[in-house]
Amino acid sequence: MIHFRPNVEAMEAYVPGEQPAAGAKVIKLNTNENPYPPSPKVAEAIRAELGADGDRLRLYSDPKALELRKAAAKIHGFDIEQVLHGNGSDELLAMLFRAFVNEGDTIAYPYPTYVLYETLAQAQAAKIVSFDFDPHFTDLPRAFFGCGARIVFLASPNSPSGTLYSRPMLRALATSLGDGILVIDEAYAEFADSNNLKLAKELDNVVVLRTVSKSHSLAGMRLGLLFASAKIVAGLWKVKDSYNLDRLAIVAGAASLRDVEWTAQNTRKIVATRGRLMNELCGLGLNVIPSQSNFVFARMKNADNAAGAYRFLKKKGILIRYFPARLLDDGIRITVGTDAEIDALLTALKEYLARG
Amino acid sequence: MIHFRPNVEAMEAYVPGEQPAAGAKVIKLNTNENPYPPSPKVAEAIRAELGADGDRLRLYSDPKALELRKAAAKIHGFDIEQVLHGNGSDELLAMLFRAFVNEGDTIAYPYPTYVLYETLAQAQAAKIVSFDFDPHFTDLPRAFFGCGARIVFLASPNSPSGTLYSRPMLRALATSLGDGILVIDEAYAEFADSNNLKLAKELDNVVVLRTVSKSHSLAGMRLGLLFASAKIVAGLWKVKDSYNLDRLAIVAGAASLRDVEWTAQNTRKIVATRGRLMNELCGLGLNVIPSQSNFVFARMKNADNAAGAYRFLKKKGILIRYFPARLLDDGIRITVGTDAEIDALLTALKEYLARG
Repeated sequence: MIHFRPNVEAMEAYVPGEQPAAGAKVIKLNTNENPYPPSPKVAEAIRAELGADGDRLRLYSDPKALELRKAAAKIHGFDIEQVLHGNGSDELLAMLFRAFVNEGDTIAYPYPTYVLYETLAQAQAAKIVSFDFDPHFTDLPRAFFGCGARIVFLASPNSPSGTLYSRPMLRALATSLGDGILVIDEAYAEFADSNNLKLAKELDNVVVLRTVSKSHSLAGMRLGLLFASAKIVAGLWKVKDSYNLDRLAIVAGAASLRDVEWTAQNTRKIVATRGRLMNELCGLGLNVIPSQSNFVFARMKNADNAAGAYRFLKKKGILIRYFPARLLDDGIRITVGTDAEIDALLTALKEYLARG
Repeated sequence: MIHFRPNVEAMEAYVPGEQPAAGAKVIKLNTNENPYPPSPKVAEAIRAELGADGDRLRLYSDPKALELRKAAAKIHGFDIEQVLHGNGSDELLAMLFRAFVNEGDTIAYPYPTYVLYETLAQAQAAKIVSFDFDPHFTDLPRAFFGCGARIVFLASPNSPSGTLYSRPMLRALATSLGDGILVIDEAYAEFADSNNLKLAKELDNVVVLRTVSKSHSLAGMRLGLLFASAKIVAGLWKVKDSYNLDRLAIVAGAASLRDVEWTAQNTRKIVATRGRLMNELCGLGLNVIPSQSNFVFARMKNADNAAGAYRFLKKKGILIRYFPARLLDDGIRITVGTDAEIDALLTALKEYLARG
């Protein structure tokens, strides 16, 4: 008779997101991938590492991922001791739990936000304190101040709202946590007007997470970066898998980080398309949450109306995200694609709305 | 004031293994990498996934890694529900801890063995029960029977001894564990005369781990596989990072698994070279532990003699492994390289021994 830990037995079985089959003709606006290809330097670096016969792949990858961490430290003005690499920022989140959270310790995050915080808390048998946003996601619930959590997780921009926290408020919150940790998950920060790397330089208990999945068009390579005080990073090394990145991911990530202009260019295009999308959705009568990310959340008349839009678009070959959940079920989340993709989305959405 | 979990504070800081700089002219016989290149199908599959501009890398990888798991299930005769993929078998070991081991639960393993079991146990705040091998590693300590552990970890072949456990004994042990789990870590099983995949098919509480690092010459790609009952695999999905393998690792692993003949051919070469290495070391008066793996552990006169050999060889540009630890410090571990590499090793070792 096999039995798992009680907290694991109580967890829901994993359900992977909707991924169309390879070669399926869909417009994919559901998982916040970048519509533009990664920097050409990425394929170049992978080919160079591969060589003629892949012979270098027989040797272990660099456990320190020096090439990648050096590039990240240089670009963002950190010491290399303040930078850590993860197999996606998901792995870095898991390391933070392993390093800081005992069974029964409290962790906190707002609702709604990235669902992985809850999954990891359950896996670590942590106690969860969660505070609801107001329907407009205008500011962080004040309740976080003095909530006694070992870690507070805030995604900035938040998902699925696309909203940003103010830096003075984040600084005040970090200071109020005492020996607690504030993790600012900046997976989408490159699409925002400001970010909080500065806080990770100033305050010992602030961790900022980044990823190359979105802004660098490398979701398929699984690469996250963590910026924090050297003291925090030193502790995280202890719970890190030794060889957590493969050889190709390390060279791909470093090449992509170094091609700053490529990322900036694609980001500018996405931000421009996002502005147009928000305007058009407003014009169609949707209640648009102003987005600082590469997706837009917009509320419709009611849950039936939003769920119907999701289904209608899916039949037309356009995948968007619908969350059948509290505070979210009257809205749809649309990833900002190319202009042509967004045109197709808007045409189909108009058709849906015209049907009444 | 930052503080980590007490168990993490108590852990040693991470020290990565000895990795020569890129381009350094060394004979690397210290970390059990395969001296032969991976299957040409691997580079081919990576190039195909990469395409002209790496465009596919902007999309998330398959969280189910279906292509890889299908290949693994087919080759070894399992249902796909009995197979799980990891970012190296190290990640699969971490998942087993997260799924089964509460803080304070007991886990057990012999000494000496793969050091990661201890690291992961400390990270999970588990209680460790460890039993010493006899100096010849001839059999598993009987003490494991009825030791009350949630998980018993046995590497078969074991490292650094290269020795195998007998299957009837493993079956008896698994049965004696009740609701405990027996994890058989078969990272080196392709070099052995027998393996225990059969036990994972027969018994609900047996987990077998494999990796493409050694036999498939893909240490640099970070790919592990787990075989167990569907019940165990279903629980592990809950604690798995969603996208734990990148796109290139999935296609590389699948291509390599399918090229059965390539792996078999390289394995035969390594086994032949291993036999010659063992004979020669015996001839030189070393006390060789019969190896079923791609490395050989051999004891010398005493610890000074063994440490001296390590240092002498290093000066000659030949890296082997020396463990300054109880039961091991009078021995050296040599990875089986190419015939030419082993010739160079033997020549240098003879020179060292001739100096007295």
